[in-house]
Amino acid sequence: MPRPAFISLDGLDGTGKSTQCRLLADWLAGQKVPVKLCADPGSTAIGEQLRQILLFGRDHHVATTTEAFLFMASRAQLVEEVIRPALDRGEVVISDRFLLANVVYQGHAGGMNPKDLWAIGRVATGGLEPDLTLVFDADLDVAFARRNRDADRMEDRDREFHARVQTGFRFEAGMRPGPYQIVDATPDLAAVQQAVRHKVARLLADFGWTISTEG
Amino acid sequence: MPRPAFISLDGLDGTGKSTQCRLLADWLAGQKVPVKLCADPGSTAIGEQLRQILLFGRDHHVATTTEAFLFMASRAQLVEEVIRPALDRGEVVISDRFLLANVVYQGHAGGMNPKDLWAIGRVATGGLEPDLTLVFDADLDVAFARRNRDADRMEDRDREFHARVQTGFRFEAGMRPGPYQIVDATPDLAAVQQAVRHKVARLLADFGWTISTEG
Repeated sequence: MPRPAFISLDGLDGTGKSTQCRLLADWLAGQKVPVKLCADPGSTAIGEQLRQILLFGRDHHVATTTEAFLFMASRAQLVEEVIRPALDRGEVVISDRFLLANVVYQGHAGGMNPKDLWAIGRVATGGLEPDLTLVFDADLDVAFARRNRDADRMEDRDREFHARVQTGFRFEAGMRPGPYQIVDATPDLAAVQQAVRHKVARLLADFGWTISTEG
Repeated sequence: MPRPAFISLDGLDGTGKSTQCRLLADWLAGQKVPVKLCADPGSTAIGEQLRQILLFGRDHHVATTTEAFLFMASRAQLVEEVIRPALDRGEVVISDRFLLANVVYQGHAGGMNPKDLWAIGRVATGGLEPDLTLVFDADLDVAFARRNRDADRMEDRDREFHARVQTGFRFEAGMRPGPYQIVDATPDLAAVQQAVRHKVARLLADFGWTISTEG
């Protein structure tokens, strides 16, 4: 019996993570792998409410610490309601972002202590960590040019902030080689998806799944 | 110059905390003490939104961990937006509940580790703790009979849950004599208020305020 796996895609805004998540999920489903695709924050009723507050709450100032705890609340619900049940059913879970994003955005870039964010994150997730996190990286200019024009609150930050985000992602991934792997998101969509598939296929093979990276 | 002080009233549902908070604030204001009254959760725009989700969100299951993080998010905003600025202005802050409530409700009664709640609470509050917490205690039958008929979600629990709540409050207060003091809420409203005033007056005298417990 193949083992369930938990994979997250994270990294800089504007690097195509959400699209790559969907392509990855479709590809695995096409190979008869039972896949659960979710987004953090989101993917639960309360998570969607919080996502709205977080991403579009421009009408009042939200403290960085408040923001971090709202993400954690949404994640706690996501883990209990979606991710753990899917893993219990033996599925492969793909999450568009996870805890690492808070460590970087509210921590490295936002001024909170990254260690505090890992620590409160362990409480929020009950200790659940992705088996593999793909950290999307790109030249900041490329990411800036590509990012969504309808920039939500998270993306509506200055360049200096995003440089700290990039440094944070690289630092945290560098500290945890193996479960955290950087993916260069500079090439075109198909080439990036191919790189993603190779990394995911390697993990899933280790977990007992039969996967072909062709097609 | 008298020092600013941070006082919270906490304890069992149905023990009249909110009324006692208002009476206390009015009494201090009448003695020319600059008072800031707030409620946790609540007292900020985002806190009110979260309070609605927490207290009246019956339409979907909210995980205990999610609940804890939502309270923490609301508290982080309350500390940054209301409590710290009031303390910086030299005021006396009175909060209707604070971190202790989560330690007890989601911890002792809800099954999370109370130590985890103290730990994530320190991150949410930036380490700010009340100088004095009055923990309202009463016979469970008295508290049950008195509690609001329009029971909100937090109060709509069974007796066994409230027994765990009571044990939790007593345990945590017992561990921290001095800053956490139990108030017997069994007597009538005026007698309880008199007990509250005596305890608060003692703290404020230590902090350099001139207070009379008469009138």
